[in-house]
Amino acid sequence: MLFHIRMDVHLPENMPSETAARIKAEEKAYFQTLQQSGKWRHIWRIAGQYSNISIFDVADNEELHRILSSLPLFPHMQIEVTALCRHPSSLHADDR
Amino acid sequence: MLFHIRMDVHLPENMPSETAARIKAEEKAYFQTLQQSGKWRHIWRIAGQYSNISIFDVADNEELHRILSSLPLFPHMQIEVTALCRHPSSLHADDR
Amino acid sequence: MLFHIRMDVHLPENMPSETAARIKAEEKAYFQTLQQSGKWRHIWRIAGQYSNISIFDVADNEELHRILSSLPLFPHMQIEVTALCRHPSSLHADDR
Amino acid sequence: MLFHIRMDVHLPENMPSETAARIKAEEKAYFQTLQQSGKWRHIWRIAGQYSNISIFDVADNEELHRILSSLPLFPHMQIEVTALCRHPSSLHADDR
Amino acid sequence: MLFHIRMDVHLPENMPSETAARIKAEEKAYFQTLQQSGKWRHIWRIAGQYSNISIFDVADNEELHRILSSLPLFPHMQIEVTALCRHPSSLHADDR
Amino acid sequence: MLFHIRMDVHLPENMPSETAARIKAEEKAYFQTLQQSGKWRHIWRIAGQYSNISIFDVADNEELHRILSSLPLFPHMQIEVTALCRHPSSLHADDR
Amino acid sequence: MLFHIRMDVHLPENMPSETAARIKAEEKAYFQTLQQSGKWRHIWRIAGQYSNISIFDVADNEELHRILSSLPLFPHMQIEVTALCRHPSSLHADDR
Amino acid sequence: MLFHIRMDVHLPENMPSETAARIKAEEKAYFQTLQQSGKWRHIWRIAGQYSNISIFDVADNEELHRILSSLPLFPHMQIEVTALCRHPSSLHADDR
Amino acid sequence: MLFHIRMDVHLPENMPSETAARIKAEEKAYFQTLQQSGKWRHIWRIAGQYSNISIFDVADNEELHRILSSLPLFPHMQIEVTALCRHPSSLHADDR
Amino acid sequence: MLFHIRMDVHLPENMPSETAARIKAEEKAYFQTLQQSGKWRHIWRIAGQYSNISIFDVADNEELHRILSSLPLFPHMQIEVTALCRHPSSLHADDR
Repeated sequence: MLFHIRMDVHLPENMPSETAARIKAEEKAYFQTLQQSGKWRHIWRIAGQYSNISIFDVADNEELHRILSSLPLFPHMQIEVTALCRHPSSLHADDR
Repeated sequence: MLFHIRMDVHLPENMPSETAARIKAEEKAYFQTLQQSGKWRHIWRIAGQYSNISIFDVADNEELHRILSSLPLFPHMQIEVTALCRHPSSLHADDR
Repeated sequence: MLFHIRMDVHLPENMPSETAARIKAEEKAYFQTLQQSGKWRHIWRIAGQYSNISIFDVADNEELHRILSSLPLFPHMQIEVTALCRHPSSLHADDR
Repeated sequence: MLFHIRMDVHLPENMPSETAARIKAEEKAYFQTLQQSGKWRHIWRIAGQYSNISIFDVADNEELHRILSSLPLFPHMQIEVTALCRHPSSLHADDR
Repeated sequence: MLFHIRMDVHLPENMPSETAARIKAEEKAYFQTLQQSGKWRHIWRIAGQYSNISIFDVADNEELHRILSSLPLFPHMQIEVTALCRHPSSLHADDR
Repeated sequence: MLFHIRMDVHLPENMPSETAARIKAEEKAYFQTLQQSGKWRHIWRIAGQYSNISIFDVADNEELHRILSSLPLFPHMQIEVTALCRHPSSLHADDR
Repeated sequence: MLFHIRMDVHLPENMPSETAARIKAEEKAYFQTLQQSGKWRHIWRIAGQYSNISIFDVADNEELHRILSSLPLFPHMQIEVTALCRHPSSLHADDR
Repeated sequence: MLFHIRMDVHLPENMPSETAARIKAEEKAYFQTLQQSGKWRHIWRIAGQYSNISIFDVADNEELHRILSSLPLFPHMQIEVTALCRHPSSLHADDR
Repeated sequence: MLFHIRMDVHLPENMPSETAARIKAEEKAYFQTLQQSGKWRHIWRIAGQYSNISIFDVADNEELHRILSSLPLFPHMQIEVTALCRHPSSLHADDR
Repeated sequence: MLFHIRMDVHLPENMPSETAARIKAEEKAYFQTLQQSGKWRHIWRIAGQYSNISIFDVADNEELHRILSSLPLFPHMQIEVTALCRHPSSLHADDR
């Protein structure tokens, strides 16, 4: 089941740079595990922003929440969730 | 070059249903040509809305505008454009 | 899978009252079928508005979209969709 | 009398984790007492947010305010209140 | 039970002036009945707007919705509802 | 002359609780003096918020500003001012 | 007593040009009477908009509403009212 | 050339009161110099807000920016700029 | 003097296509005269919108308003005006 | 390829003035390199704001993001990106 997710990251100004670097490294590792499993199907950087737009392919709302709330950056992100469906005009049987 | 596009369709309430059907058929045909060429790379329906979220892969801003402004539904859509980049953490060399 | 749906109805001012009455009757019949099947689990009127807040319990995003876009009032409603999960603190095993 | 409540939690970034854990435990205990009494009739987590949507069934506005302003997380939440009514189309005599 | 209600009136530009006059006369008569019964406890005009701010004193949400949705101007108004409580600092035992 | 005032209180998270208690006590005392004089004609708590809606009856804009800017909580409140008039349909000669 | 008023004019697209011309002429005549009396103390056009910003000097809220709601363009304007006071730093005893 | 300026002041909560008093005194002195020169033509306090609405009469955009960005309170204000013109209906040859 | 102008065009849905074509031709001719005179210094199309962003170089606010309000599309555009200055860091003596 | 960029700078209130001066000097040097290369084609100050409006002329979205995210002020700016095209009515073959 597909979801469109936008994440905007706002690190606190007084966070020590080592802490920030550690959290970002954990985030990247966790992201890549999810990307390899196919759950985090697409990710793009928004030009000029510390933000991404992603497509998740998960079993249900519960799994989506479990993944998002486990992100190391979760406490420092604003997250926007939009439920998606396959589009009826699409010619690609596998457009996910 | 990648762009994230959201389209919200608002047909005028007094548009005859045959006119609406014809415009939608033209839109679908035009869309499928673009999908096959790879310009209109992804499309998803937003659940519960007469709206889609799409990813375009075009040469430049000019081509993006030429495609969008030629859509048969263009006069009846609100369109939101966001410039995307490849995400530095992505493991997929071809994530478009 | 649970979704929180808000629907705000805006009938066109020049819609004949018989047309409005017919559409509302169709909407009610369709709603009651869905309520009996358990898909449309809860519905409440918002005090002072021609609006409702509902809880849907559906198989997936596709089914949600199929139901919503088939509502007789669909062309005349603004719809807001929010994906829900079971709350971890709830004592009710069946809180849907 | 039914109210639709949305709560968005924003803990201060510098709150010690023990303090946060203690407040959340108090909140959970208080919530479960209210859930058992039937005052806090439904609760759902919003997918991807530290937020919930709830239905309260209280005697009047005064009781609603007394309950909400006594929540241990009250100083750290944004709360949105919407007054609800039974929906005239509902087949469920007890839809609360 | 007290509610704060703001009503903004938007009559359609093509409504014949006799129709407008008739609806306003019906609204006024209905209002005055409710004012005399004590249900519509206060009403003020907002300076420079075709809008009012009112205080309703009703049995419950159901009665509030029944009154508001029966207003002759209901189809032509935007209505905003806010649930009120007695303020703990007030010295007036009867401040409604 | 009547004004509709909404006050939303936001105390700084690091304000010592004794300071908060002192300011609230001063606010309450000042409020009650104004209530007895008839200047602060009505006050209601908004259910679920640390906010009130009030009606002031003052000589002019100058007096309104003098009173509001002297409130002990003034530096910690967001204030919204709306000028009111007697409503032409009101049957109560003294509806203030 | 001073008020800051912003007026944005939106004439209906299908209004005959003679009707528009007549209403504007009436508006201008009414405006000039008020300007001469000192009630409509200042008026400026907003560059690039069919809008003005004005300062009114009236006896009270009632007079302000009576003047604004009598404007020939009143049904076609969005009006924003802000109550003003003399500024304590001003050196001009007569800054109105 | 005329500009409409709205300034909303937000002093940091932890600014020492002597610092605040000094900045305000500097602001007042600077304001009065500009008022006497005719550059800062009008100023009014917004009732109930720590805000003012002003009319500037300057040579061009450059001078406007130079004045505003030199205000002692500039780092603590939100400023809104609107370009004004003489209104064609005005009878006052010198309405500035 | 420089101004940043954004124009969003909304032609009425029922405008005959010949009328639209005529107005656009008049707009284009008028635009080109202004472009040649240097008043309308830059113009760009916003990708995916029937909108442009322009830079005007005019004598003062009056001239800006005279030009904008004379545009054949003026009644069908939403216009946003922002006053600009030369930027102090610019190396280009003639950056307009 | 052209982009319209608006940057609003918000330095933290507790940033030491030497730090602020150093970052601004780095920003200015970096800006001037980009201006000389033609990538940062235009820059204007917004009158009355610590903000600029700029036109970038870059190879693609990737280059735009690389430049913007390398700005010394990037962590302290809100950035808004709009993709531009040459306007079809322009007489200037080189209007960038």
